[in-house]
Amino acid sequence: MRVALIGGGVIGGGWAGRLVENGVDVVVHDPHPEAERRVREVLDNAERAWARLTLVPRVRGTVSFAATLTEAVAGADLIQESAPEDETLKRRLLSEIDRQAPPQAIVCSSTSGLLPSRLQADMTHPERFLVGHPFNPVYLLPLVEVVAGALTSEESVERSLAFYGSLGMKPLRVRKEVDGFVADRLLEALWREALWLVHDDVATVEEVDDAVRYGAGLRWAQMGTFLTYRIAGGEEGMRHFLAQFGPALAWPWTKLTDVPELTDELIDKIAAQSDAQAGGLTVRELERVRDDNLVALLQALRARDYAAGAIVKEHEKRLLDAGGGRTEERDPEQPHLYESAVDPSWVDYNGHMTEARYLHVFADATDALLRHVGVDADYLAGGHSAYTVETHLRHLREVAAFEPLHVLTQVLDTDQKRLHLFHTMQHATSGETLATGEHLLLHVDTKAGRAAPWVEPVATAVARAAAAHNALSAPEGAGRAITLRRVHEA
Amino acid sequence: MRVALIGGGVIGGGWAGRLVENGVDVVVHDPHPEAERRVREVLDNAERAWARLTLVPRVRGTVSFAATLTEAVAGADLIQESAPEDETLKRRLLSEIDRQAPPQAIVCSSTSGLLPSRLQADMTHPERFLVGHPFNPVYLLPLVEVVAGALTSEESVERSLAFYGSLGMKPLRVRKEVDGFVADRLLEALWREALWLVHDDVATVEEVDDAVRYGAGLRWAQMGTFLTYRIAGGEEGMRHFLAQFGPALAWPWTKLTDVPELTDELIDKIAAQSDAQAGGLTVRELERVRDDNLVALLQALRARDYAAGAIVKEHEKRLLDAGGGRTEERDPEQPHLYESAVDPSWVDYNGHMTEARYLHVFADATDALLRHVGVDADYLAGGHSAYTVETHLRHLREVAAFEPLHVLTQVLDTDQKRLHLFHTMQHATSGETLATGEHLLLHVDTKAGRAAPWVEPVATAVARAAAAHNALSAPEGAGRAITLRRVHEA
Repeated sequence: MRVALIGGGVIGGGWAGRLVENGVDVVVHDPHPEAERRVREVLDNAERAWARLTLVPRVRGTVSFAATLTEAVAGADLIQESAPEDETLKRRLLSEIDRQAPPQAIVCSSTSGLLPSRLQADMTHPERFLVGHPFNPVYLLPLVEVVAGALTSEESVERSLAFYGSLGMKPLRVRKEVDGFVADRLLEALWREALWLVHDDVATVEEVDDAVRYGAGLRWAQMGTFLTYRIAGGEEGMRHFLAQFGPALAWPWTKLTDVPELTDELIDKIAAQSDAQAGGLTVRELERVRDDNLVALLQALRARDYAAGAIVKEHEKRLLDAGGGRTEERDPEQPHLYESAVDPSWVDYNGHMTEARYLHVFADATDALLRHVGVDADYLAGGHSAYTVETHLRHLREVAAFEPLHVLTQVLDTDQKRLHLFHTMQHATSGETLATGEHLLLHVDTKAGRAAPWVEPVATAVARAAAAHNALSAPEGAGRAITLRRVHEA
Repeated sequence: MRVALIGGGVIGGGWAGRLVENGVDVVVHDPHPEAERRVREVLDNAERAWARLTLVPRVRGTVSFAATLTEAVAGADLIQESAPEDETLKRRLLSEIDRQAPPQAIVCSSTSGLLPSRLQADMTHPERFLVGHPFNPVYLLPLVEVVAGALTSEESVERSLAFYGSLGMKPLRVRKEVDGFVADRLLEALWREALWLVHDDVATVEEVDDAVRYGAGLRWAQMGTFLTYRIAGGEEGMRHFLAQFGPALAWPWTKLTDVPELTDELIDKIAAQSDAQAGGLTVRELERVRDDNLVALLQALRARDYAAGAIVKEHEKRLLDAGGGRTEERDPEQPHLYESAVDPSWVDYNGHMTEARYLHVFADATDALLRHVGVDADYLAGGHSAYTVETHLRHLREVAAFEPLHVLTQVLDTDQKRLHLFHTMQHATSGETLATGEHLLLHVDTKAGRAAPWVEPVATAVARAAAAHNALSAPEGAGRAITLRRVHEA
């Protein structure tokens, strides 16, 4: 897949980042003398953000810069135009692209609100044109609005939806062609009101921002305004909410859609307040703060498999599959595998998994192994179980909320009544060892309350697992006692 | 601290949750026959959310329900009114509260947009009244808008800012008294536009929500609209952004502030689309999904020490300090004593404490010892901590829910950077030994991320404890490794 990017500003550069991080080769054309430097800076940000976002192995695409539009679009499967928001300029560019691009290529515009039917009016092949409107930073925010013009073919829409989806994006097909589409109409309504609040000295730019990010912004990162209000309506739901709060909307709370005139005075005020808010950080530094925050939010939602996090999770599966895939069937002579993740409630005030939760995960891995050898609900109901009587843990590395874990479990030894296990907890994607757990389990007759020999079919399964794992080398750290004198310093 | 809540709906119940989880005693008055049941359901949600939000030990406040307003406000330090948004009703209630409340109590209204100068007009002591406008769910979202009326005293404002801050909230003092204050003017602008989009069939309620939560919503959870746009302006910053995008605002993108008339037809459409979006989940179920998402987002931002996460982090420090001084003075030559009990949530389906919770109790006992030798919030803030690197547990006897426990902690050894501890968990009344825990801790420089020598005054305290405990005999079971062959059968 090869994509031509016409325009290398904040949006074009952001597209380059998302495409390259997802293995797509990119050619950028932008006549601005600083374009290449700027795009490369955005690419650095994108690489940094994706390295934090996912540990799934990926193949990165290449980037090149073309001096002419003709050179850029040659051999492209898709052309994404991200020129300034000027209808005349865009129409001229798009018909030029249409003339030069390979016949099978799709042509998309990143416009945030110009009508596709007007943008495609001068094209010879308008059926291959549509709007694909992304959001800054394009390499992290999943939303892309797909808007067809009157002459756009259904095939072009379907191809673009599939392509954007393959980049880990959430394409939203807009049903009706209206100025500003869906997202920017919502954003502009809030932005216009924000400008009035600053204009009227009700709040500074920082106070307006705080009114969003400490309140509704946290809701909007996971549920939109309708689902949020459905819940706020309480048990009676949406109808109740509309009946109760609908009338309040008619109160004179918000200004007219008139925009406050951007006089020199108002621009000075906003710029000065904005400087104060930025606290001396450059835009480049602020970008990194923003990106790190976005990555953390996306990862939090990934652990919840919800909203944008569900998109990331699904995308990781796609990337994993593309990378050859891991076999589900495992060799019975290899350690037993148990998979988990760090639940956010397991994390202490330092942001790390609290020590008792390591044992929690190991106990779950022990349970998984016991189920594997046949200690199931029926076996327990029959009056037998296996209890842990001794545990030795080594904490080798800290682990943060939402990190994926797996535990490899090796049976070290067994006899008639006992089972000696060794767990190795690893980061599921990096493979780094985080902790080890060594455990001695005693098989008990739960009614009599004392040790008892294993019962079939568990007895055979335990012996078989021990024999199979016997072939493995003894894990490092097994059989150790704690003494201060023997430990090497970190 | 004692707070009276007048009104026990979604907002009043949410206040109850935040207050109780932060150790404040609450009295609720609401004439609705279902009020108590509803408040208790919100309290359950709040307890569940806070248990996931932070592991810092906290003391919970109490809740009671008062049949009359007079009874509710008796002895209250603060009265928070959360009645329906009806100015006449609120004015009547507030002057009644004013007549009944103790003279030093502050009176606050949760109104989302009514003017405090009008609400306080009938009060005899209007100087003690102000608006404290929270956001749903009140127990999780930190924002509270503080708005003074013309007759409000500065002292009342200061007291309310301090009190709300002590609950882990972010009070935003609104400079000018305007309808809708700051946050709701922004929210209503977006909501009004959302209603038009659905009214005009540009998008369904789910599509509107997706246009928010997959895009700008992720930005708004951490930075507001001004800082976001400053960054979007690229290297030239805010002035450039205003010059480039200001004119686009004047385009006819958003509707007038006219609200679409809430005809039966429009209400039917929104309710039907909202039902489809909810996918069969009840409001109660949706609340839990929302709360778990919000907790995950807050924890993600806590790890970044940014926006709402910085508020949580700061609040945890406050809670830690408040609970810091609970260890009793004991003979320094005896093992250190830590007292606990088996929380019912720690018990497995057999009715016994689950194995990971033994380590949970030992970890708490380790923390208690560390606080005892001077590892407190200041020491941690100074960039040092002690991490457990190795643990050896022996489970000797089962223990059931609510059983009282104590842990005797003996310092076995120490050197410049390490601490070797032995915990003996006993039944607090029978004295029977239930389990032992042997631990090796490493003292670390948390900024450098590596082992470092103890710092004074902790260094001396650690050495002194080791010397004192040296006189005690070595505990049975110390220094053991796990091996199947050496273990005696139970």
